[in-house]
Amino acid sequence: MKNIRIGIIGVGTMGTRHMNYLQDGLINGATVTALYETTKERAEWLKEHVSSEIEVFTDEDAFFRSGMADAVIIATPHYDHSKLAIKAFEHGLHVLCEKPAGVYTKQVREMNDAAQASGKVFSMMYNQRTNPLYQKLRELIMDGELGEIRRINWIITTWYRSQSYYDSGGWRATWAGEGGGVLINQCPHQLDLWQWMTGMMPERIRAFCYFGKHREIEVEDEVTAFTEYENGATGVFITTTGEAPGTNRLEIAGDRGKVIVENGKLHFWRLRVPEPEFNRTYQGGFGSPECWKVDIPVKGEETAHPGITQNFVDAIRKGTALLAPGEEGIKGLTLSNAMQLSTWLDDWVSLPINEDLYYQHLQEKMKNSSVKKENKSIALKVEGSY
Amino acid sequence: MKNIRIGIIGVGTMGTRHMNYLQDGLINGATVTALYETTKERAEWLKEHVSSEIEVFTDEDAFFRSGMADAVIIATPHYDHSKLAIKAFEHGLHVLCEKPAGVYTKQVREMNDAAQASGKVFSMMYNQRTNPLYQKLRELIMDGELGEIRRINWIITTWYRSQSYYDSGGWRATWAGEGGGVLINQCPHQLDLWQWMTGMMPERIRAFCYFGKHREIEVEDEVTAFTEYENGATGVFITTTGEAPGTNRLEIAGDRGKVIVENGKLHFWRLRVPEPEFNRTYQGGFGSPECWKVDIPVKGEETAHPGITQNFVDAIRKGTALLAPGEEGIKGLTLSNAMQLSTWLDDWVSLPINEDLYYQHLQEKMKNSSVKKENKSIALKVEGSY
Repeated sequence: MKNIRIGIIGVGTMGTRHMNYLQDGLINGATVTALYETTKERAEWLKEHVSSEIEVFTDEDAFFRSGMADAVIIATPHYDHSKLAIKAFEHGLHVLCEKPAGVYTKQVREMNDAAQASGKVFSMMYNQRTNPLYQKLRELIMDGELGEIRRINWIITTWYRSQSYYDSGGWRATWAGEGGGVLINQCPHQLDLWQWMTGMMPERIRAFCYFGKHREIEVEDEVTAFTEYENGATGVFITTTGEAPGTNRLEIAGDRGKVIVENGKLHFWRLRVPEPEFNRTYQGGFGSPECWKVDIPVKGEETAHPGITQNFVDAIRKGTALLAPGEEGIKGLTLSNAMQLSTWLDDWVSLPINEDLYYQHLQEKMKNSSVKKENKSIALKVEGSY
Repeated sequence: MKNIRIGIIGVGTMGTRHMNYLQDGLINGATVTALYETTKERAEWLKEHVSSEIEVFTDEDAFFRSGMADAVIIATPHYDHSKLAIKAFEHGLHVLCEKPAGVYTKQVREMNDAAQASGKVFSMMYNQRTNPLYQKLRELIMDGELGEIRRINWIITTWYRSQSYYDSGGWRATWAGEGGGVLINQCPHQLDLWQWMTGMMPERIRAFCYFGKHREIEVEDEVTAFTEYENGATGVFITTTGEAPGTNRLEIAGDRGKVIVENGKLHFWRLRVPEPEFNRTYQGGFGSPECWKVDIPVKGEETAHPGITQNFVDAIRKGTALLAPGEEGIKGLTLSNAMQLSTWLDDWVSLPINEDLYYQHLQEKMKNSSVKKENKSIALKVEGSY
């Protein structure tokens, strides 16, 4: 079977990373054949440094008309994700889209429609879904080992970003450039895992975002969100880029047990009898259900970005099921949009959110933006990024 | 110096506990001389079983007029705490009051005024303040080791209570009997420590209480509360009586470090330079302040209820400073009242709260109460209680 020819759209920080592992031959059945990069200096640099077999485009139409790719990886700034994905589907290309799926759900819904109409393979770069810890946790929940979920709590504050980070790119942390802050840039993985592992989306959200609280930026750099689910469960999601040392601790309590993921380990406590059953039958005063601490084997390694790209390529070539179907990108983004909207309205937001209302507010933020940074695009080293 | 003669008001579950350690001679300089108990059967039992040197009263006026006590420990149902304390102050007695200080702050404010007017020693039974972990944490914060506090998160769900617990007393978990649920019965210590350790009270609170969610009761059995402070810090407080196994994890992040108290251990991370200083000077991309994990010695033992009672007696006899001054009881109760009120209003509540509005709502809850339990008063074993 022929190799899938991959075009990378946007060869900045993340696009370069994708190009590198593809060029290093880490992905079976795929070859980078084309790059599309609008920043002139970056495009020039690429032309001089990449293999002559890879064509570098600076013009969108020329790239799409070239016929040099079967599939694209989209790694541009967030606003262009949906637009470029739609264009790719129109050109009969498979699409692997970097997170987030887009900036507002209205845009992403159109992308999902285009994907469906095209019949092409569509995946999101939700590389954290390859983490065996989260896979195991999802498996435990889906198999009912935790019982009915009652409470979810994720403190994810390991996103320390200094002012110099924000100043490194004019588009960073602006309404016009990113459409948000820690929710749209750092947290898309957690917001996705939050719903993917549990299989649940909240009924409504009451969130408290703070904009430019820790840094001179206009978007949110601290968030606490409270979520309510149809089954009565509640959740709290806490994140910030202003805290050191950060915490990454996920706790999920069900009526048969509790799981905590922290410091790269999964901890599982299991009730000998489900809580509701104990409650029905117990006749004493201060007793509680017998609880066992259980050691759960977590096997395998996190295959990360290359893992998702391999899965995407296998889906195209062999029909392998996608680990992160593109249509699911809207879920995490809905959570993110709802958290911002709840803050702007200072009120509850029910799901599905009012997409037009969100879009209106976002437009207003962009219009009233006071940020006029110089556009100094720098591709940062990405060790701290996911 | 003569022993302080102590009268115990309310000799049920907790009152008995206080009587026992006093009779066992655990408190230097104090003797139980009188008991006041309104439940006839319980009073009869006490008359038959306690030393003949201890007088047992069933009439309030007789007890107060007897002149048999210099100080009282109040361990009645919550609603009577303030009323009885006021009466005790009027009779020139020192008062050690069980938690909570009362059910609504209006009542507690009157108690505080009476205490001040009397000039007598007034302490709250905040026995958790004797826990060396919390004392050390408070010391670290007060000495500035954490720097400016930015985020507080307490998950305290180790309060599992079955339906049979709630059914064990007609007054339990009713508006008329307790004036609330997990906030007023189980959490007063945590709500007190929350403000005592940090020295901060929130500016406003947005809370989500659930009433009778896990048990057939009318009061709150699950709460998530979001708090905002004047210095920009935020907090989340989560509690429930419906979860097993529970979590008790306190995390406090400051701009010089972070503390976590969990599983009876204090964990401390300290930044080599304060975060704001790092942020001002760092010029790179994804860097963060150097952080040291520090082992902090935590010495001493939790002296618990006898510790507070000893401190109270020493304050009377030697002028020793109180660990838990009675006037501070209103602080934790304000948090509790604010959390309920925020839920009832489905909105923010600013501090100090509107005491009349809270009282109105509480009156309404009592009026509309559908609970008509049999009054089967049982003194439960208190191993699970604090």
